[in-house]
Amino acid sequence: METVSTAKAHGGVQGVYRHDSRETKTPMTFSVFVPPQGVTGKVPVLWYLSGLTCTHANVTEKGEFRAAAARHGVMIVCPDTSPRGDDVPDEKDNWQFGSGAAFYLDATQAPYDRNYRMYSYIARELPELIAEQFPAADLSRQGVFGHSMGGHGALTLALKHPERFKSCSAFAPIVQPSTSDWSIPALTKFLGADEAAWRAYDATLLIADGKKFKEFLVDQGGADSFLDKGLKPWLLEAACRKAGIPLTLNMREGYDHSYYFISSFMADHIAWHAARL
Amino acid sequence: METVSTAKAHGGVQGVYRHDSRETKTPMTFSVFVPPQGVTGKVPVLWYLSGLTCTHANVTEKGEFRAAAARHGVMIVCPDTSPRGDDVPDEKDNWQFGSGAAFYLDATQAPYDRNYRMYSYIARELPELIAEQFPAADLSRQGVFGHSMGGHGALTLALKHPERFKSCSAFAPIVQPSTSDWSIPALTKFLGADEAAWRAYDATLLIADGKKFKEFLVDQGGADSFLDKGLKPWLLEAACRKAGIPLTLNMREGYDHSYYFISSFMADHIAWHAARL
Repeated sequence: METVSTAKAHGGVQGVYRHDSRETKTPMTFSVFVPPQGVTGKVPVLWYLSGLTCTHANVTEKGEFRAAAARHGVMIVCPDTSPRGDDVPDEKDNWQFGSGAAFYLDATQAPYDRNYRMYSYIARELPELIAEQFPAADLSRQGVFGHSMGGHGALTLALKHPERFKSCSAFAPIVQPSTSDWSIPALTKFLGADEAAWRAYDATLLIADGKKFKEFLVDQGGADSFLDKGLKPWLLEAACRKAGIPLTLNMREGYDHSYYFISSFMADHIAWHAARL
Repeated sequence: METVSTAKAHGGVQGVYRHDSRETKTPMTFSVFVPPQGVTGKVPVLWYLSGLTCTHANVTEKGEFRAAAARHGVMIVCPDTSPRGDDVPDEKDNWQFGSGAAFYLDATQAPYDRNYRMYSYIARELPELIAEQFPAADLSRQGVFGHSMGGHGALTLALKHPERFKSCSAFAPIVQPSTSDWSIPALTKFLGADEAAWRAYDATLLIADGKKFKEFLVDQGGADSFLDKGLKPWLLEAACRKAGIPLTLNMREGYDHSYYFISSFMADHIAWHAARL
């Protein structure tokens, strides 16, 4: 692992790091905020998964998470959203597929199956690296959250690993990518046309298929232009109600899909996770 | 004035606006955060002046000011750092002069004197526009702060207009541009070789020449790579001591010159201003 940069921030250290990933077969960049409490002791680890078009950098710069993470003593890890590079098959002009749009799954279809393994990268490889390189990380206390495509990533990861994650929340998540215009083409290319394979990466269908998690927190902007077509939080609400999973869904009037929305409720989410970690 | 964008954030509205400036003779872009208290009532106005290479956007995205501004009910106005455009004389490869580096002065030397009028723009034109376009702005309660070159701007503006500004603070300000490597070439080009003309835009020399302000707050990172050469806060300390101006100078161990530093102490500065506005 190579250190790209570090800077003191809010009493802790905000770093950016790069390593060669065995899963994606590319260099991968991610950011880690170690709160002041991590200098001397162990702290819980909260994973933030970003949305379409983002790298680790967007939330690291615009997410306003450090003040709350320092207050509550939580480490924040922000991975990239996809493998990148000249050798990675991509559609340069399509923001909903490929670079910046890997949907936190393991692709099964050539030529994408070689590099697009973000599920295994987040579920296994990166936690191993964090455990090895960040002595402050207490991996017995992990939470996960994310935005939009990253909210989908957080929900599906938590449902598949309820033993690993003690808490899960999301900002404006894609709750049912199988039926969402902006994810169907990507799922088809990554996983093939058989929709049965898509169920493993669809929060509402994982719940319908019996996966459980102890509770979810979701914030959703009421003025989000993707609300009706891409996000549809009511589908998660219905799935959770049927399965008996407690869901707190906060509709936030007037808020859009941007980092202005995310950063407005970031401190609330971190406090909520901290209380459960 | 044209609205470029608005988004709800921290209960208020973060907007970006553009207008044709009579001073710079170019379109100028700036951002305004109206806190929730500004929807129904009047709120004080806190001006944030940015540093070299920045536009209004850097601090608007990375400054983490909205949570504190919403808590204290303060409007935050972030101007650009220079005129910009194909018709504006510039040195494209020089980050210390021209675009992004106008040093909050009125140039007197051709060809720069036509557009580089950031002092008059901030001192007169933009406040008039804010008064006209933002009914929530209570311009009888104004404060000013800034970073690096913008800290220089804040200090000199406050010293020249103690009746207008009730409070002034700075992050890592250039306190004596007349003797600083990174500003001498710009002062020479904008104001001519006669250093007497530079005194009007040098905080320590304005103080030496008898200008007063009721008190200053300055935060300075101890690991700032520009500390010894460009910033030298001890020169401000000496000038204030001699003139009897109270200065709180917080040296912040381990912090650099970046937005990670600024955002770490942003809430402190806004609370400090709010108590004086």
